[in-house]
This record gives sequence, C-alpha cells and structure tokens, in this order.
Amino acid sequence: MANEPTRILGLDPGLRRTGWGVVVAEGSRLRWIAHGVVTPPETAPLSERLLHLLDALGAVCADYACDEAAVEEVFVNVNPSSTLKLGHARAAVMLAPARCGLSVAEYSPNLIKKAVVGAGHADKSQIAFMVKRLLPAAGDVKADAADALAVAITHAQLRRMNHLAIRGTA
Amino acid sequence: MANEPTRILGLDPGLRRTGWGVVVAEGSRLRWIAHGVVTPPETAPLSERLLHLLDALGAVCADYACDEAAVEEVFVNVNPSSTLKLGHARAAVMLAPARCGLSVAEYSPNLIKKAVVGAGHADKSQIAFMVKRLLPAAGDVKADAADALAVAITHAQLRRMNHLAIRGTA
Repeated sequence: MANEPTRILGLDPGLRRTGWGVVVAEGSRLRWIAHGVVTPPETAPLSERLLHLLDALGAVCADYACDEAAVEEVFVNVNPSSTLKLGHARAAVMLAPARCGLSVAEYSPNLIKKAVVGAGHADKSQIAFMVKRLLPAAGDVKADAADALAVAITHAQLRRMNHLAIRGTA
Repeated sequence: MANEPTRILGLDPGLRRTGWGVVVAEGSRLRWIAHGVVTPPETAPLSERLLHLLDALGAVCADYACDEAAVEEVFVNVNPSSTLKLGHARAAVMLAPARCGLSVAEYSPNLIKKAVVGAGHADKSQIAFMVKRLLPAAGDVKADAADALAVAITHAQLRRMNHLAIRGTA
C-alpha cells in the first residue's frame, strides 16, 4: 500500500564505486535513512570484485530491511570495454536485492532527472542539490551516493503515482 | 596438486542460454562428468533472469562438487546493447562459483581454440568435434555446452602445464 512506510534502496552501479541510498516513503513523505559507497578491491580478480559488490549490498538490504529496490537503466557507452564492465557491475548490484526477494525497478537517466530536478537535462550538481533539499537529514552526500538516492526518490514518486492512479480508477 | 582429481566447471555465458560443463582432471587424464544449458525465463524482469542464472549454476557447483571454475573472456561486441547484456549474464555466471568459494579463471577465445583444437582460428564445429573426441562419454553435445566443456578442457590443460612448470623450476 502506498501509505504504509516502504523502505526503498536506490543503486548507482560501478565496478570501482557503487553508490547506494535508502529512503523511507510514507504517503507523499520521504525520509532519509542511510547512504554509502561500496568500493571493491581494484587488484582482485573480476569474480572477487563482483562477489564483494554482491555481499556488501546484500548486507545493506538486510541491515536496513529494504522492501523494494531500483537502479538506473544504462546508456550504452561509446567505449565497448566500459560498457562490458558496467554490465558486470550492474548485474552484481541487481542480484543483491533480488537474492533478498526484492523487486528491482529500472528507470532511464532522463526519467530520474525529471523526477528529481524537474528537467530531463539536469546535470550532476543539480541532482545532488535537489537530493540534499529533498532529504536534508542526509547531510553532505558525495556524487555516487547522491545518484543512488536520486534513483530511490524516483522510485518513491513513481510507485506513489501508480498507487494513486490505480485508486483513482478503482 | 595437479595429480589429484580436480573437478572443473567450464562456463559459456549468455542471458538467453548459458552452457556449463564439468570435467575431472587427474594428471593428464580428462573425464567427462556432466553438461547442460541454463535458460532463464525470457519474459521475466532482468533481475529475476540474473537470479535464475545465479541459482541454477550455484546448484551445479554444489551438485557436482566443483573445485575450480573457468569462463571465456569476452570479445566486446560491435553492438553495444548486446555487449551490455553479455556483461550482465557473465557477471551472474561468474558469481555462482565465486559464491561457492571457487576461483574463476578467464581465457581468451583464441587460447581456448588453441588448447582444444590446436589452432587459434578454429570454428564452432571444429571445437564441438574435438570436445566429443576428448570427452567421448559426453555423447551428443549441443553448441553452448560444447563451448563450456571446451573452457573446462582449456583450464585442465593450462593448470597442469602451470603445475609441471612450477615443479620443473623447484
């Protein structure tokens, strides 16, 4: 139900740095719970770096009792090697909540910018500014975690609109 | 030790079809144990398809008591969207043995062809032919599983050469 408190985990995947952020959505209210960045050991074999992401984010899901998760859809990069690396990281990042039984929604970068800033072509600093305004308790948030919180905010808004729309047509 | 029986899991990742094959390496001898293909539900959300791969291959690791795993290195595709999908699948496929505590070796397609067929530019049918010759007990093997068994054979040969080289210099 849209009015029951729901803990949402937002994720911004990267093989070097993955940002995460947890918010509680209760009706139209939004409250910050926690955020952070996971940095797998760069010199470890790929399988161990992915396992580091899976385990660390699995712990986040459990520690903060998350109910739903969301992740940014990926723009395929002009550099195929970067695209492949991002694909690896993104899979590990999506598998962590999936293993905990959470659904994992995907939103395009433009939709996230529209939901958080109000414009589809906002830059990173505008997103970080709006994240701080919407979640004042978060304090100073670095870029990766700000992007993750922006995904969580987007999911909170869109799931609420979906619930209202369903109620309106019921 | 190179002469103790070692169960090797070879993997050929794909989001639609992932081939797997298990062989036992004992000194220079190679014996087929099992092979198969995992096909995640195509209409499910991405996170569930990846979870299907992770769980199914985790069961393979456990059922066949695998000791080591190996996977093909990826040629980045000309199609960035395909590259991204392959990256997703590959991460889930590598995470399954990593979660079971197995190391996951990576070999280039050319190295696999050289190890199995003897030529770096062998085609798929030549690989399948040699896999059947080297592992007669495998019977009729479809393409995805044949590629997975080829990766396992490559790992068996290279780990043995490494062990012999280490012993030679000791």
